[in-house]
Amino acid sequence: MSRQMVRPGGRGARVQASVHTAVHELLAENGRETLTVPQIARRAGVTPSTIYRRWGDLQALLSDVAVERLRPDTTPDDHGSLADDLTTWAEHFLDEMSSPTGRAYIRDALLGDPDGGNAGQCSAYAAEQIDTILTRATRRGEKTPDTETVIDHLVAPLIYRILFRPDGLDTTHTHQLVATTLDHT
Amino acid sequence: MSRQMVRPGGRGARVQASVHTAVHELLAENGRETLTVPQIARRAGVTPSTIYRRWGDLQALLSDVAVERLRPDTTPDDHGSLADDLTTWAEHFLDEMSSPTGRAYIRDALLGDPDGGNAGQCSAYAAEQIDTILTRATRRGEKTPDTETVIDHLVAPLIYRILFRPDGLDTTHTHQLVATTLDHT
Repeated sequence: MSRQMVRPGGRGARVQASVHTAVHELLAENGRETLTVPQIARRAGVTPSTIYRRWGDLQALLSDVAVERLRPDTTPDDHGSLADDLTTWAEHFLDEMSSPTGRAYIRDALLGDPDGGNAGQCSAYAAEQIDTILTRATRRGEKTPDTETVIDHLVAPLIYRILFRPDGLDTTHTHQLVATTLDHT
Repeated sequence: MSRQMVRPGGRGARVQASVHTAVHELLAENGRETLTVPQIARRAGVTPSTIYRRWGDLQALLSDVAVERLRPDTTPDDHGSLADDLTTWAEHFLDEMSSPTGRAYIRDALLGDPDGGNAGQCSAYAAEQIDTILTRATRRGEKTPDTETVIDHLVAPLIYRILFRPDGLDTTHTHQLVATTLDHT
């Protein structure tokens, strides 16, 4: 999390936006090996000390940028049934998170963040999307598992394998996870 | 992973052992905030360039030390049934991995290791322990889930929550995970 509260539209928010954009652009252009705070500051039009003051160090800044990038920008699609909604969401989630960029962002979110706030935020984003899917299913009159069950048996295995054990990841595996999760209704 | 192969008993193995011990001692004494390569080198009786040559940087060294520390040093206990063996193992695994030291080691193993070899090794250690438990159960004539199912529905939720969502972690939750896993037999 940023070290300071940011007022929307204020100078703080503008600095944050331009620094985040600079990081994102430089990562896309040169990767993270050569990324430095002075380079980010130059691109964002701020001084390095502005960055150090607000974020502490490069790792913490990368962690904030990662969480921002991992924020879902749409509501999960409505396909008319819980099974379809969850399957489509899980396939999309796996696609995004297991891409080289997705993996790098998950690692960044974890690593620059010793107190766990940013990692918790990533998990909260997934939980919100699942909540949306489950609430919609309940309105349709479908039986649903609870959100924490979906986290344990669908989200957790996907993220665990992305980070620690990528070999088993494919669509068949994802569909099996959805089936197991739906057994808990 | 170490950048070089190490011959047991050779100079390489002795250097590795003394550097690992130095890291472990210095972490215990001062934590990781102040840890530096020259400090480790001094304690281990080697030159800093020996460390840079073999490990590349501090993060990669910490990652290697973490994997070494996460290696299980005993076979899982035999309690006479699959349910008891898996429950006891999972409780012990959660205890170790969710301790401040355990969490720090998991993060280190992930962090200094962009190609995923060390993270994969951590997962392989868990899989070996589970294999032992399942093989024993099969010999007793019990029905068992396969190792990857135990990874997905027991190991993954524990590690995911330790890293991203620690609130739900307790013995009741672990027991539920074991029950779900055993449904897959």
